[in-house]
Amino acid sequence: MFLTRSEYDRGVNTFSPEGRLFQVEYAIEAIKLGSTAIGIRTSEGVVLAVEKRVTSPLLVADSIEKILEIDTHVACAMSGLTADSRTMIEHARIEAQNHTFNYDEPVPVESVTQSVCDLALRFGESTDGQQSTMSRPFGVALLIAGVDDRGPQLFHTDPSGTFWRYEAKAIGAGSEGAQTELQEQYHRGMSLEEAETLALKVLKQVMEEKLSSTNVQLAKVTEQTGFQIYTKDELEAVIGRL
Amino acid sequence: MFLTRSEYDRGVNTFSPEGRLFQVEYAIEAIKLGSTAIGIRTSEGVVLAVEKRVTSPLLVADSIEKILEIDTHVACAMSGLTADSRTMIEHARIEAQNHTFNYDEPVPVESVTQSVCDLALRFGESTDGQQSTMSRPFGVALLIAGVDDRGPQLFHTDPSGTFWRYEAKAIGAGSEGAQTELQEQYHRGMSLEEAETLALKVLKQVMEEKLSSTNVQLAKVTEQTGFQIYTKDELEAVIGRL
Amino acid sequence: MFLTRSEYDRGVNTFSPEGRLFQVEYAIEAIKLGSTAIGIRTSEGVVLAVEKRVTSPLLVADSIEKILEIDTHVACAMSGLTADSRTMIEHARIEAQNHTFNYDEPVPVESVTQSVCDLALRFGESTDGQQSTMSRPFGVALLIAGVDDRGPQLFHTDPSGTFWRYEAKAIGAGSEGAQTELQEQYHRGMSLEEAETLALKVLKQVMEEKLSSTNVQLAKVTEQTGFQIYTKDELEAVIGRL
Amino acid sequence: MFLTRSEYDRGVNTFSPEGRLFQVEYAIEAIKLGSTAIGIRTSEGVVLAVEKRVTSPLLVADSIEKILEIDTHVACAMSGLTADSRTMIEHARIEAQNHTFNYDEPVPVESVTQSVCDLALRFGESTDGQQSTMSRPFGVALLIAGVDDRGPQLFHTDPSGTFWRYEAKAIGAGSEGAQTELQEQYHRGMSLEEAETLALKVLKQVMEEKLSSTNVQLAKVTEQTGFQIYTKDELEAVIGRL
Amino acid sequence: MFLTRSEYDRGVNTFSPEGRLFQVEYAIEAIKLGSTAIGIRTSEGVVLAVEKRVTSPLLVADSIEKILEIDTHVACAMSGLTADSRTMIEHARIEAQNHTFNYDEPVPVESVTQSVCDLALRFGESTDGQQSTMSRPFGVALLIAGVDDRGPQLFHTDPSGTFWRYEAKAIGAGSEGAQTELQEQYHRGMSLEEAETLALKVLKQVMEEKLSSTNVQLAKVTEQTGFQIYTKDELEAVIGRL
Amino acid sequence: MFLTRSEYDRGVNTFSPEGRLFQVEYAIEAIKLGSTAIGIRTSEGVVLAVEKRVTSPLLVADSIEKILEIDTHVACAMSGLTADSRTMIEHARIEAQNHTFNYDEPVPVESVTQSVCDLALRFGESTDGQQSTMSRPFGVALLIAGVDDRGPQLFHTDPSGTFWRYEAKAIGAGSEGAQTELQEQYHRGMSLEEAETLALKVLKQVMEEKLSSTNVQLAKVTEQTGFQIYTKDELEAVIGRL
Amino acid sequence: MFLTRSEYDRGVNTFSPEGRLFQVEYAIEAIKLGSTAIGIRTSEGVVLAVEKRVTSPLLVADSIEKILEIDTHVACAMSGLTADSRTMIEHARIEAQNHTFNYDEPVPVESVTQSVCDLALRFGESTDGQQSTMSRPFGVALLIAGVDDRGPQLFHTDPSGTFWRYEAKAIGAGSEGAQTELQEQYHRGMSLEEAETLALKVLKQVMEEKLSSTNVQLAKVTEQTGFQIYTKDELEAVIGRL
Repeated sequence: MFLTRSEYDRGVNTFSPEGRLFQVEYAIEAIKLGSTAIGIRTSEGVVLAVEKRVTSPLLVADSIEKILEIDTHVACAMSGLTADSRTMIEHARIEAQNHTFNYDEPVPVESVTQSVCDLALRFGESTDGQQSTMSRPFGVALLIAGVDDRGPQLFHTDPSGTFWRYEAKAIGAGSEGAQTELQEQYHRGMSLEEAETLALKVLKQVMEEKLSSTNVQLAKVTEQTGFQIYTKDELEAVIGRL
Repeated sequence: MFLTRSEYDRGVNTFSPEGRLFQVEYAIEAIKLGSTAIGIRTSEGVVLAVEKRVTSPLLVADSIEKILEIDTHVACAMSGLTADSRTMIEHARIEAQNHTFNYDEPVPVESVTQSVCDLALRFGESTDGQQSTMSRPFGVALLIAGVDDRGPQLFHTDPSGTFWRYEAKAIGAGSEGAQTELQEQYHRGMSLEEAETLALKVLKQVMEEKLSSTNVQLAKVTEQTGFQIYTKDELEAVIGRL
Repeated sequence: MFLTRSEYDRGVNTFSPEGRLFQVEYAIEAIKLGSTAIGIRTSEGVVLAVEKRVTSPLLVADSIEKILEIDTHVACAMSGLTADSRTMIEHARIEAQNHTFNYDEPVPVESVTQSVCDLALRFGESTDGQQSTMSRPFGVALLIAGVDDRGPQLFHTDPSGTFWRYEAKAIGAGSEGAQTELQEQYHRGMSLEEAETLALKVLKQVMEEKLSSTNVQLAKVTEQTGFQIYTKDELEAVIGRL
Repeated sequence: MFLTRSEYDRGVNTFSPEGRLFQVEYAIEAIKLGSTAIGIRTSEGVVLAVEKRVTSPLLVADSIEKILEIDTHVACAMSGLTADSRTMIEHARIEAQNHTFNYDEPVPVESVTQSVCDLALRFGESTDGQQSTMSRPFGVALLIAGVDDRGPQLFHTDPSGTFWRYEAKAIGAGSEGAQTELQEQYHRGMSLEEAETLALKVLKQVMEEKLSSTNVQLAKVTEQTGFQIYTKDELEAVIGRL
Repeated sequence: MFLTRSEYDRGVNTFSPEGRLFQVEYAIEAIKLGSTAIGIRTSEGVVLAVEKRVTSPLLVADSIEKILEIDTHVACAMSGLTADSRTMIEHARIEAQNHTFNYDEPVPVESVTQSVCDLALRFGESTDGQQSTMSRPFGVALLIAGVDDRGPQLFHTDPSGTFWRYEAKAIGAGSEGAQTELQEQYHRGMSLEEAETLALKVLKQVMEEKLSSTNVQLAKVTEQTGFQIYTKDELEAVIGRL
Repeated sequence: MFLTRSEYDRGVNTFSPEGRLFQVEYAIEAIKLGSTAIGIRTSEGVVLAVEKRVTSPLLVADSIEKILEIDTHVACAMSGLTADSRTMIEHARIEAQNHTFNYDEPVPVESVTQSVCDLALRFGESTDGQQSTMSRPFGVALLIAGVDDRGPQLFHTDPSGTFWRYEAKAIGAGSEGAQTELQEQYHRGMSLEEAETLALKVLKQVMEEKLSSTNVQLAKVTEQTGFQIYTKDELEAVIGRL
Repeated sequence: MFLTRSEYDRGVNTFSPEGRLFQVEYAIEAIKLGSTAIGIRTSEGVVLAVEKRVTSPLLVADSIEKILEIDTHVACAMSGLTADSRTMIEHARIEAQNHTFNYDEPVPVESVTQSVCDLALRFGESTDGQQSTMSRPFGVALLIAGVDDRGPQLFHTDPSGTFWRYEAKAIGAGSEGAQTELQEQYHRGMSLEEAETLALKVLKQVMEEKLSSTNVQLAKVTEQTGFQIYTKDELEAVIGRL
């Protein structure tokens, strides 16, 4: 007879009899409690859209940052524990700068994604006896969007340190419904403008609150402009198109 | 079948099956046992007001410090474990001084807030193999008030290492009622004087004891004056306005 | 359903679901088993009085030291685990000497109190990777009495690393009854002589044994004389006044 | 009476009363949840074929890499935890490069296999006090294919750090059925072309989805060409032969 | 509901809900299993008497040393775990030598007692990251007898690191009955010779075996002679006086 | 009442109330699951014979190495965990080389055996703070065969770090039956040729599969030839003699 | 209510409520499972005799060493875990050599005994942060026999780190019966020859197998000859006298 599932989660990095790592699975649960984020790749660039949970009218909505720059050509949307994401994104930024410094070229999007996953995998151990990392998995999923020699790309990372490349991907509390919606409506020939509209349309469907320029954030990464967060006016223009 | 909730809190930094970090949640409970503190931002500056619990008539009320200076232009009100806050605020002061020394300019309010949150996140690990921090979450919430190039600002930090920017925010035992009151009465055009009155008025409603110049403390941070704690006379003048 | 209270005390520094630190609370219990100590502040100086438990007629009463000098102008009365207090007071003495050496002035009473509380907070961790402190909270409460530029002062520290300033305070087994008594009889205009009498009078009420010059100790800290323990004759004179 | 089996898995590296290491056995279970991979050795070279699980139509199938190069003459197919395999294969690549650097000859296939197994055995310990490895077994099985002085070779490694040399071997979720199939159909005189067909034919039988050029990957290691992944066209040609 | 008492003793240095340290209390129990030792102070010097448990007629009684020299003017009688006492007494001897070397005067009896207690308090921690001490309390009680500027003195130390000064004190299995006896018969004006007789008389009452020159040891510390263990003849002379 | 046996095995190196070390006993169980190995000493040299478990017809039988060289004059047969034995035998090889380097003579067979046992004893501790060994006992038994100044010798080591010298010894799954057989048929005057025949004859009786040149391995260590594994032809010649 | 006895043995070095150290007591049990050893002191020298358990007729009896030299004038007989005793005796040998090197005289027998006990006491801790010892008590008892300025001496050490001096002592499985026999038959005036006979006679009574020159070992330490193990002929001569 096996112990019940929940008795395996105390060792942070231990297999269960079925070969599972429960702490990693539980961290993935933490993301299901997070705000929804959506990424859509087109040949013109990648669009990122996130829900901002403004829990109080006195909370300054602008101060909630769910989309963050990693380098001028790479950014990410996050869902899960905000404080954990700071560490991950800081790590990604340093990797990006080191790459530029060493090779005199922008870091490839996949490289920066991989460095984030390497950090995620190392929880529960110190990397070199000098500097310790997290004692538990990072409770964060990222949608990393960027443009490099291989064109616009969208990656999804999870707490297990695994990453996948997607055409369009949703994470967070509303991810299930959003992903179904994306599969139905996404097509490869989509323009960036169509992607903007789709991202907000899907977000609107899964958000509990009424979508407005206050409680969502929209951004894009294109070869021409690099990473840009939409201004309130630009955002309202897209909302107007819905 | 899951274990009951409480069996997950023994590993200080471990996810529960639902993706929660209980030790952090319990630390947040510690703050709900603390004295109430209120912060209100206006375009003229930020007001901080705190309840002082004078548990004995022989206790010297002046020796209870719940509002503390971080730099001449940044201060904070605390709720929760007093001894823990000493470590956090000392950390913030050093960060502020380092910034001034390195960049020859006052530390931005958000930077000092972030440094406090980075410290909060690191519980249960040593930062560099040389110096260890807390083995449990800090049982402290802060309202950080300051003025810099971006004008007067008010931040709220909690034991998870997350921070938010607020127009007006209450923490501690009476925070629930106080926050509702703030939402009803706060408006963006408020003057600093109106904020002073509102802060004490709200505090008065949630305190068990009768509010007096002995059991509350009031302070402000403005561009002109920097951080200032109100004298007994100044405080009584505000109380007189209620 | 929560676990019962007592199951949280095994991690020395872990929050319970209600946000409490049980090991610290249990250490506070250890003090309730200790001998009673009383401190009274007047404008002329501070009086400290302690009960000495002479468990055997063959025990040399003079060898029980519950009031100890920290510097010529600061002293303390202790209650709780005698051996723990040695470490704390040794720490305080070194801090006092360092201050004098570095600043060429006597250490302020609040500074020396704070240094004792910093030590108390650090249980369960090593301070700099080189020198370890206690693996559990210190089971000691102190009444620190001193005179500096701010006049005579009385501080109370507990195992949580928190300190408060008091006019008059009782700690140890009889503290509850003694504190009530102090609140009734203490007044700000009291002379040092009246404080001596009050201290012993209150101690007499809460002690199980009959108070005599053998089983109590009396001391004062004044600006003129600094710290002085009363001789047997001086002590009996005060007892005579009861 | 013995404890039930599952109570032994908490110490990551502890024998059960029957002399078993459960964490290693559980890690082996993790592989049974992984995608199926097949290796077939012929005198002309070694063929590797893997299933790619494309869980979403928006997932970019090309970004799933289950066959990876170690050196120009050695490659491997993996099954199990993707993130774990990155660490193992990176280790193998460094070993291969070091060998070439030190001895100026390609690393023998068995040497690189052994170095991977040495890493697998060391979980739960730090190798030199400086650099720590995994705190649990690696949840990965590899089929290492290569060509050296001893001709084409195929090795199988598992989480226990053991390796075996095979003529043909299947790992992952469908390994049981696939291995039976291989035993019936494999013969020593097989050409590389026959091996290509057999690998895909067996994979087709054990995959839930319909096999296509999108959800399988095929590769070979021969003396002439070294390691090569089949292009979409080459792959479809082989599929056409089924 | 509290856990039962015994569940708190597993953390070697943890408070119980009542504020007790059980491992220290259990170590004190270890002494109650030890052989009885008695110390009596007179104005002429201090007498130490111990029971020697000769468990086998083939055991060489002379090889059992329960009274040991620390310096020429300080000695101690021990009860409890023999092996533990070796470490403590070795520590005391080094402290005594260091004092003589540094200050060119014999170590005061109280100083050497305090150094033994400092060692006792430090169980479960390493003192300076370089040298570790015991991982549990020392299971030893000592009667430290010595003569210095303050005249003949007798100290009692226990596993908690606390010490007391006594006129006459008994430790070990028979301590309860012996202490009662000492209280009845000891008087301050006693001569050293009377103390010798009383020590053996009390020991005789609490020993199971018949007292003889083989199974007790007698020693004295006086200003004139320093520490001296009685020869068999001297011992039999005292026994003759009973 | 004692706990049941199995509750003692969690501390890797802890005595049970009966004075047993269960983890070591469980490691010995691991060997009982291993393949059978036999060693026979004669005055001409030592013969080693092992069973090779070929679990799949596609497994390359030659790649299973159960008899390994330590030095030209010492070799061993192993049973138990293959991966563990690699570490042990690598350790033995280094010891052998160091000896030759330092003393310019072949390492005595007993010395190399003792060094393997010293390694076995040290599980669960780091040897010098720099280099850690296994955190559990090695799950391996060895038959070490060699020739030195004391003639041909056969040693048996087990996971407890104990070794014995034998005339003839069987280990592994079939060891019980095999040892009985050896006792009946072994005699001191045996020639090496007789030992070859006896070893295979005994192995044949305890193996489940039919013995063939594919699933057994035979080797010898003699003064003239040193260590030699039998070729397929040599092996079949011996099998022919059965 | 106390926990049952056996629940205290998991902390290797923790007191039970009755003041006992169970791991040490369990280690003492390990010795009761060991082979019997006997030591007898006479004025001419000390005799050591041990049982050798030859569990298989193919085991080379000469390779079982239960009596080992420490220095030319000190040796010991062991009972318990063979592998543990290697570490202890190696430690004793080094201490003996160091003494000779530093003081240019043979090490006193009591000094070498004490150094073995110091090692025994230190289990579960590292001695200087550099070199770790056993994580559990040593499961070994020794009879240390030697001759120095104080004449022939016999010491007995046990896992607690305690030692005693004996005229005659038995350890191991048959120690109880053997010790009773020794007490009846030993007398101080015994010659070395009588001691030889007595040692074997007692051993014969407690051994399960029939005593012969194969399954016992006899040795002596005298001033004239130092340490000597009896040859087969010498041993058979003594057996002949029984």
